[in-house]
Amino acid sequence: MTDFHLIATDGAARAGILQTAHGEIATPVFMPVGTAATVKGMTPDAVRATGAQVVLANTYHLMLRPGAERVASLGGLHRMMDWPAPILTDSGGFQIMSLSGLRKLDADGVTFRSHLDGSSHRLTPERSMQIQHLLDATITMALDECTKFPASEAEAEASMRLSMRWAAASRAAFRERSGYKLFGIVQGSIYPDLRRISTEALLAIGFDGYAIGGLAVGEGQAVMFEVLDASVPLLPADRPRYLMGVGTPDDLIGAVSRGVDMFDCVIPTRAGRTGRAFTSSGVLNLRNAIHAGDDGPLDAQCDCPACTRHPRGYLHHLFRAREMLGPMLLTWHNLRYYRNLMTGLREAILQGRLRAHVEALRAGWTRSAASSGM
Amino acid sequence: MTDFHLIATDGAARAGILQTAHGEIATPVFMPVGTAATVKGMTPDAVRATGAQVVLANTYHLMLRPGAERVASLGGLHRMMDWPAPILTDSGGFQIMSLSGLRKLDADGVTFRSHLDGSSHRLTPERSMQIQHLLDATITMALDECTKFPASEAEAEASMRLSMRWAAASRAAFRERSGYKLFGIVQGSIYPDLRRISTEALLAIGFDGYAIGGLAVGEGQAVMFEVLDASVPLLPADRPRYLMGVGTPDDLIGAVSRGVDMFDCVIPTRAGRTGRAFTSSGVLNLRNAIHAGDDGPLDAQCDCPACTRHPRGYLHHLFRAREMLGPMLLTWHNLRYYRNLMTGLREAILQGRLRAHVEALRAGWTRSAASSGM
Repeated sequence: MTDFHLIATDGAARAGILQTAHGEIATPVFMPVGTAATVKGMTPDAVRATGAQVVLANTYHLMLRPGAERVASLGGLHRMMDWPAPILTDSGGFQIMSLSGLRKLDADGVTFRSHLDGSSHRLTPERSMQIQHLLDATITMALDECTKFPASEAEAEASMRLSMRWAAASRAAFRERSGYKLFGIVQGSIYPDLRRISTEALLAIGFDGYAIGGLAVGEGQAVMFEVLDASVPLLPADRPRYLMGVGTPDDLIGAVSRGVDMFDCVIPTRAGRTGRAFTSSGVLNLRNAIHAGDDGPLDAQCDCPACTRHPRGYLHHLFRAREMLGPMLLTWHNLRYYRNLMTGLREAILQGRLRAHVEALRAGWTRSAASSGM
Repeated sequence: MTDFHLIATDGAARAGILQTAHGEIATPVFMPVGTAATVKGMTPDAVRATGAQVVLANTYHLMLRPGAERVASLGGLHRMMDWPAPILTDSGGFQIMSLSGLRKLDADGVTFRSHLDGSSHRLTPERSMQIQHLLDATITMALDECTKFPASEAEAEASMRLSMRWAAASRAAFRERSGYKLFGIVQGSIYPDLRRISTEALLAIGFDGYAIGGLAVGEGQAVMFEVLDASVPLLPADRPRYLMGVGTPDDLIGAVSRGVDMFDCVIPTRAGRTGRAFTSSGVLNLRNAIHAGDDGPLDAQCDCPACTRHPRGYLHHLFRAREMLGPMLLTWHNLRYYRNLMTGLREAILQGRLRAHVEALRAGWTRSAASSGM
């Protein structure tokens, strides 16, 4: 039972519903990132108001601070964060690669130093499953090693085989509960054969959903789309597909068009904190002096508070004055933009007009925004 | 016409209503500070949700950035901030003393350097009135020189006489509009005779309300209360009285009991940003490890989101992880605490039981909180 129901397809693109212990998720879906059990700069009410259906939290960060047992003693993530809707937790593999200092891999797990205080920690598939259980994750991710980029085919294969070993161990250690999900993660870098072997290994184990990992690590959009073209068709139609850590609006459009259902990325929240807004006419940097005297809205097509309640020149002022409200309002706006983007894609899939919808979206963006995404 | 109506008194304490162009203000009232046209860490909806009736903004900060003419071109403070309720603007005198570098006073105004970029600026009573008009302030403050502390009686007298000259010039330059108010500011440091002379000078000019300035600058609560005891009875009963820059909950109780109607202070917002919470049982520092595992509410008697939706241990986590949501939630809580404090005082005045109410409040605080306020 995956509780995932496909409602419509348009080419490779899909619209579906994933039922979970904490409510339904309409796909395709973008999941805002709440690394340390908070979407930075947003109250949970504000996150809800953007239309977010599910948020991410990070095993790596939370095991170090405040600690998984501490989160459990505070009632779990849903209660602690006041977020009764679904929560997906990353398994920790990616952050150990990107954030921790000394780390030592072995067949059974990884020993690493905290980026906070240098203290030594160990993460195994079994402990990752236990931590995500303590956090009360709706969707648990199998522990993987996120393969470095670039990697030779031999390096990528060794890394992928370790992740597949850990995937089996994660599956065995995951505690089944109704409506709680375990997703496996396809690795194999940019090598189609390795991606195929990885996918077959995960299918043999059996998961509630399948993530595509190891992308958005520097390979570029064209290569990423090539990997998707080779990988996504291998995944079963009746399971949700999650592209981890992606991406810009243009990345999401390309991946949804290739049959991906779920996404997470820090781009909308991080960009918002630094003054960059995704709009119907492209990406704007609100710190730019050109906005100082602009008494029009940030984006006339957006219904968020930043756009409907304040002139653009005020947002500029808030960033120039380094006021918290600037990052708060732009984070809200960007998450609303991403939500509206995904809702628009879903509606277009349901109505069989995805191609025309995407063309209209892209026409609205400026050339620079459409090409760089940022 | 002051549009100020006394509804009840209890001893020297008063409950009233001030009618303005942007709505009514029930007094006694605490006004959250929004220095740069934003209450730090709060959306305007959140400020409204705390029950705030009126917020402050600062002439000094806004004339430097983004500039008064810029604010006017963006529709004025009310529209820019999405705050249709009353706004009081400080005249700039206090901030020039406390923030700017080189400054040179003369009979007609002050020339000073910006603390932002060292650029030279001049503020006169006429320009201060013009700026506050451009900002669209509901309540404009006369330009004063905030007398340094300590000051000899001669120094305090010279400073006060300059402020009275500027008060007359402010009155003459203020552009009258229905429901817009101009307040004068009593100076005179800690010297009762000077305070009396200053009050008489302001009364001869005539203002819509009277502020008591030059306090909370290091003289201590006992001296401040002595000054209030000597000054407040000189003020007309039919005009609102505003104690500038004050203070802790205990300061507010003491000043309300002495007949003050209006207050502003950065304490609740600044304390919230640094992890300190005012509660019914005193002041708590949420950064303290004692709160890490506490799954109870911050304050069981408070109805704000920080208290009703999250365990105390989560607030601790947010501050330890330096997440924006920590300051956001504690600012919200502290403003709600201050609002509930003022509502409670007002209700007690209306019911003629202020003394008993204050005794009950103080009994709830811990000794350290009641004595230091922080």
